[in-house]
Amino acid sequence: MLTLHYLENSQSIRILWLLEELGAKEGKDYTFKRYERRKDNMLAPDDYKALSPLGTAPFITDGDLTLGETNAIMDYIMDRFDSAHLRPGVESPLRNRYLFWFHTAQGSFQPLMTDTFVFNAMKTQVPFFLKPITKAIVSRVESLFLGPRIKAMLGQIEAQLSEAKWFAGDEFTAADIVMGYTMEAAGLRGGMSKYNYPNAHRFIAAIYERDAFKRALNIDGAYDVMPGT
Amino acid sequence: MLTLHYLENSQSIRILWLLEELGAKEGKDYTFKRYERRKDNMLAPDDYKALSPLGTAPFITDGDLTLGETNAIMDYIMDRFDSAHLRPGVESPLRNRYLFWFHTAQGSFQPLMTDTFVFNAMKTQVPFFLKPITKAIVSRVESLFLGPRIKAMLGQIEAQLSEAKWFAGDEFTAADIVMGYTMEAAGLRGGMSKYNYPNAHRFIAAIYERDAFKRALNIDGAYDVMPGT
Repeated sequence: MLTLHYLENSQSIRILWLLEELGAKEGKDYTFKRYERRKDNMLAPDDYKALSPLGTAPFITDGDLTLGETNAIMDYIMDRFDSAHLRPGVESPLRNRYLFWFHTAQGSFQPLMTDTFVFNAMKTQVPFFLKPITKAIVSRVESLFLGPRIKAMLGQIEAQLSEAKWFAGDEFTAADIVMGYTMEAAGLRGGMSKYNYPNAHRFIAAIYERDAFKRALNIDGAYDVMPGT
Repeated sequence: MLTLHYLENSQSIRILWLLEELGAKEGKDYTFKRYERRKDNMLAPDDYKALSPLGTAPFITDGDLTLGETNAIMDYIMDRFDSAHLRPGVESPLRNRYLFWFHTAQGSFQPLMTDTFVFNAMKTQVPFFLKPITKAIVSRVESLFLGPRIKAMLGQIEAQLSEAKWFAGDEFTAADIVMGYTMEAAGLRGGMSKYNYPNAHRFIAAIYERDAFKRALNIDGAYDVMPGT
């Protein structure tokens, strides 16, 4: 049976949410195994890292198969369920926007957000006498490299969501699941304010209205996308 | 007609290579439009940035459609050609490894390499009196965050390529195209030495033996994955 090795407060939420959107039942169609982060550094615990060769979440096992990488797991699971509504096929008018946002979520948007958090950590986690110089160096990289890319990305997101309710168009798809996690992170700590990006925040609110997402939160029991923010 | 807006010495090479692997003919099945980087900062020129909302390469147009993001373009093009040999379907024994590496290339491996190059630039492009302190700060992030992830990634790559000739198994697929560009970058400047990663370098050499890759290089005319390295 498919087992979702679920790291709390991580990108793992997408896979649980996907399974619930597909109508899969926990305990019957898949096994849910939750791992808590280490208290000292908030990283994945050793038994999780031993399982996943790259040490990253999410991770699944299914018989002999072991599989990491969010979008690979998304496609693997959609291969096994009736998923045409979540993964528009070649003939669907939603296909091209679906492809763009499904791949952009992990290929561009999430890496920009990861870098944002790493750079923020660099600025705050140095000894106090190094803070001014660290801040100056990191801010220069942010303004040259990261800032313009994030601004362009958020602009394209807001434009898409002012045209349609969801990323691929008027129907909810798996692109909304992979974008969803990162959208929430961007809204909380990635510079995507509700004043400048109202449609982006309307999208985040719409996620919380979905029954499948509510069921996923309920199975998790203590979800918090960014503890401490 | 499909037009490939091709930025020299960039991830654009993958799309040109894919088209050649699919047997598409330049001038008949697709239009090739080459853009040179700015001489002052090596970034994309203004007419390229005006075309692509995120300012990133590759980018295609096809009638009314405009599309960025490498893997979205890969899937879009494979939707339009006889591509089952390059994109293993649900029934193929290559399917799961294909999904893993196709998505890992852009979701994990390329972002790690991009960060490596950004951090290297941070260390070298500051005034000389800031170099020691910048180096110390950046090195700390590298050792805590980037280094362990890169080591795990390169280890998994080497393990895969010691088991099979290509990433999805014994047959060449589109996963090799998206991994290929980043593999070469990792081999040149990303710490993937030929002494420690012999199978990775055997893979890079095998790319250069492919007729479709040779044709792509020929159409480009002046390809150099990392000028100056």
